[in-house]
Amino acid sequence: MPDEMTAGTFLFTDFYSLTMSQGYFKSTASNTPPRRAVFEMFFRRQPCQGGYAIFAGLGTLLQNLSSFTFSGDDIAYLKSLGLFEDDFLDYLKNFKFSGSLWAADEGTVVFPNEPLIRIEGNLIECQLIEGMLLNTINFQSLIATKTRRIWLASGKGSVMEFGLRRAHGMDGALSASRAAWIGGVIGTSNTLAGKLFDIPVLGTMAHSWVMSFPTEKEAFDAYAEIYPDNTVFLIDTYNSLKSGIHNAILAGKKLAEKGKNFGIRLDSGDIQYLSAEVRKMLDKEGFNKAKITVSNELNESIIETLVKSNVPVDTWGVGTNLVTGGRDSSFTGVYKLSACEDSCGQMLPVMKFSDNPDKTTNPGVKQVWRISDRNGSPLADILALDDDEEFCAGGNYCFWHPSADWRHFSHVIEAEPVPLLKKYIENGVICNTLPSLHEIRSNSLAAFEFFDSTYKRQLNPHLYKVSITEKLRKLKLELINRQGFHST
Amino acid sequence: MPDEMTAGTFLFTDFYSLTMSQGYFKSTASNTPPRRAVFEMFFRRQPCQGGYAIFAGLGTLLQNLSSFTFSGDDIAYLKSLGLFEDDFLDYLKNFKFSGSLWAADEGTVVFPNEPLIRIEGNLIECQLIEGMLLNTINFQSLIATKTRRIWLASGKGSVMEFGLRRAHGMDGALSASRAAWIGGVIGTSNTLAGKLFDIPVLGTMAHSWVMSFPTEKEAFDAYAEIYPDNTVFLIDTYNSLKSGIHNAILAGKKLAEKGKNFGIRLDSGDIQYLSAEVRKMLDKEGFNKAKITVSNELNESIIETLVKSNVPVDTWGVGTNLVTGGRDSSFTGVYKLSACEDSCGQMLPVMKFSDNPDKTTNPGVKQVWRISDRNGSPLADILALDDDEEFCAGGNYCFWHPSADWRHFSHVIEAEPVPLLKKYIENGVICNTLPSLHEIRSNSLAAFEFFDSTYKRQLNPHLYKVSITEKLRKLKLELINRQGFHST
Repeated sequence: MPDEMTAGTFLFTDFYSLTMSQGYFKSTASNTPPRRAVFEMFFRRQPCQGGYAIFAGLGTLLQNLSSFTFSGDDIAYLKSLGLFEDDFLDYLKNFKFSGSLWAADEGTVVFPNEPLIRIEGNLIECQLIEGMLLNTINFQSLIATKTRRIWLASGKGSVMEFGLRRAHGMDGALSASRAAWIGGVIGTSNTLAGKLFDIPVLGTMAHSWVMSFPTEKEAFDAYAEIYPDNTVFLIDTYNSLKSGIHNAILAGKKLAEKGKNFGIRLDSGDIQYLSAEVRKMLDKEGFNKAKITVSNELNESIIETLVKSNVPVDTWGVGTNLVTGGRDSSFTGVYKLSACEDSCGQMLPVMKFSDNPDKTTNPGVKQVWRISDRNGSPLADILALDDDEEFCAGGNYCFWHPSADWRHFSHVIEAEPVPLLKKYIENGVICNTLPSLHEIRSNSLAAFEFFDSTYKRQLNPHLYKVSITEKLRKLKLELINRQGFHST
Repeated sequence: MPDEMTAGTFLFTDFYSLTMSQGYFKSTASNTPPRRAVFEMFFRRQPCQGGYAIFAGLGTLLQNLSSFTFSGDDIAYLKSLGLFEDDFLDYLKNFKFSGSLWAADEGTVVFPNEPLIRIEGNLIECQLIEGMLLNTINFQSLIATKTRRIWLASGKGSVMEFGLRRAHGMDGALSASRAAWIGGVIGTSNTLAGKLFDIPVLGTMAHSWVMSFPTEKEAFDAYAEIYPDNTVFLIDTYNSLKSGIHNAILAGKKLAEKGKNFGIRLDSGDIQYLSAEVRKMLDKEGFNKAKITVSNELNESIIETLVKSNVPVDTWGVGTNLVTGGRDSSFTGVYKLSACEDSCGQMLPVMKFSDNPDKTTNPGVKQVWRISDRNGSPLADILALDDDEEFCAGGNYCFWHPSADWRHFSHVIEAEPVPLLKKYIENGVICNTLPSLHEIRSNSLAAFEFFDSTYKRQLNPHLYKVSITEKLRKLKLELINRQGFHST
């Protein structure tokens, strides 16, 4: 990636964010700050038709928000477009994100239509960060979610991320490695990701290693000689059962003489058939500790089927589908204005109606409360107006479906509700410690255990409730009625 | 993206490339160079079940190969892993890619199983670049191909790339914008991509602009006031037909008084219904020059159906599916050893057999010849052994199916065959001028016209022939027979 592609610049934004920002700038009297606004980021549909998502990318986002600027070069480029005036370009020269950010903890199990991030700032800074914020959170949340699904399908087993070569560009690979770690892999093949994120790097050998020697046997011996503690023989270059496993066992016997173990990897053919045959052959020779790794366009459906067939697989190498999402290659996060200061300085809730009912937003500045039973198992997430509403254990509350307005339920809260959104940036300055990536991963895996298994089924899962309070519902209906044409 | 993620470093490689490289290093006598090898990059299946792919990413790859190094930090990181010895780490300190590279021109229409890139160098340099090479070419070729499909579905119309927010990380967005330009879009919403690649930046307005004003009408007037030459009103924030289009027409009338035109954008609802209604309303008011832009999770299937229904759409804004590939989110490029120097210094062809027949490779150092009819319409691509085989117009040749060995055809060549692979790097130095991105795009679109339309059908297209010469077939059969267990 060329250097200039990589500068931390707010130019990484949709062009309309810049034209609109100039619009906000010009509609503001000089020496007065632009109007204040609140934007919320949420997503509309679970990826992979699943029942949950893992929120990821927050660490990257915080880093970007506190380090991005416009360079002199960027300003010169914008000037060259002939659409921006000098006073606005001067404003951008010193532009920094000076707003505040609330977010769910990275690694949180999250659901559609609930705010995961809330940005409060002036209209310009809120608008300029939209593209970068969505890019960062959408992609990492997609991959963390996909990884969690794969990890779960493997029986909470050992999954290695092998996706560098099929990922979407350099950062598509690096960010995927970061998110996959949060999702639950035991490590990555991406060496740079290992260095940047302090996560384990892993790998076996390539077919080219085997092919570069006159015989498979010589290739295996040469590798075992150099890496006696880390040998995993790739046995399918020529023929796994007729050649590869025999040469692996021969080389493995020499390792055994040195007191060393080994493993094998299968990268083609039928995994269930081959792994069973290979296991038998290894066991027959006394190598019952030799581990079997498999790879080859795996995904959670293939892995789940294999695991249910009791394949003797110890480790799963997953690349393409894990780092791209496979057929589910995007996360539907959006970033919508939910309140805006009017010309009299009053912050007013706003909402989008759209020609699609499912694109209608929830107005106002909101907090999300997670309600659990007495054992800590989450039951529902409640969207409430941030300043006004609080809940406590023992109280009896009525909650409403966010769009099917005839559906609501009363609930006596058993355990203290937990607010999901915490303040991470205050007036441009990071004000909350972000846990290490290792802590994020272990917290995320621990919290995941508390969710009922019905939400975690790979296909057609139980839908977790995301409801709104009576007060938020009233505000929403009031805005709908005021608009006057909600009948279509 | 933090700075340290962005250094141009060969550490962006699969970990096994480093362990194998140390293996090659240690098996080489000191002061002798590692053995020489030839690797070829090809892909196995067309993306999107289509009939063609557009080769992209070469410019980025050449830049990376000539600028990547290992930093002191990288070496320290590798040392910390406890697996690499000092002499090998010293070697990496000064490592540069010093091999040679042949490739198809960027933007070439390409097909499965033909080499798109050939790398000649020592085993270490060939191996270390594998991950980066595949990452770069796979992703950009995926997006250039997807874009060409979308562009074709739109009737070779105006497609804008709007994908930043759903792309896979920062480089997933930037590389996608680059590849989409080659594919045929008229511009991108990604401002940084516009600056880096000198491609047009485009955009309209967001719902937030509309919602930040007390009324939709005020929002439209304010925008038209600032950008009288570039106004596209987003009309679906509240209700496209009952509100948006009326306010757009009111604002448009004021623009018309200044002699200015305008456009509208639809981002929800049924595009066929709404665009027809909106067109009628615009025309009725005399705004028959007002253009209609549509967006909302479009892909080539949706666009093709709409175009066949004669929707009055002028411009298509395509985001998610264009920059991720949608359900087809990966390109199946691989990088395989095809020849390797033995211990006596002789370069020997090698091949991989695998437990899957479709993973069997073609051995030897190869060139690809494109054979066309007298009108320049390509008929087949022929894989031949590079040094040995040449073809000329008028000659009668026999070509073989690469795996179904009973299929072959005789052909009298009408027009001079064109070799697809050209030398771009010689001993580490770029030796061929790469056209500008604008030239790559126009060359690619022009060459695409010469392919018969049967290859370009979106569904179930005619399969373009990729064949091998009799000489290559003999080499392949010889290696298969020598291996001895080809019967499974």
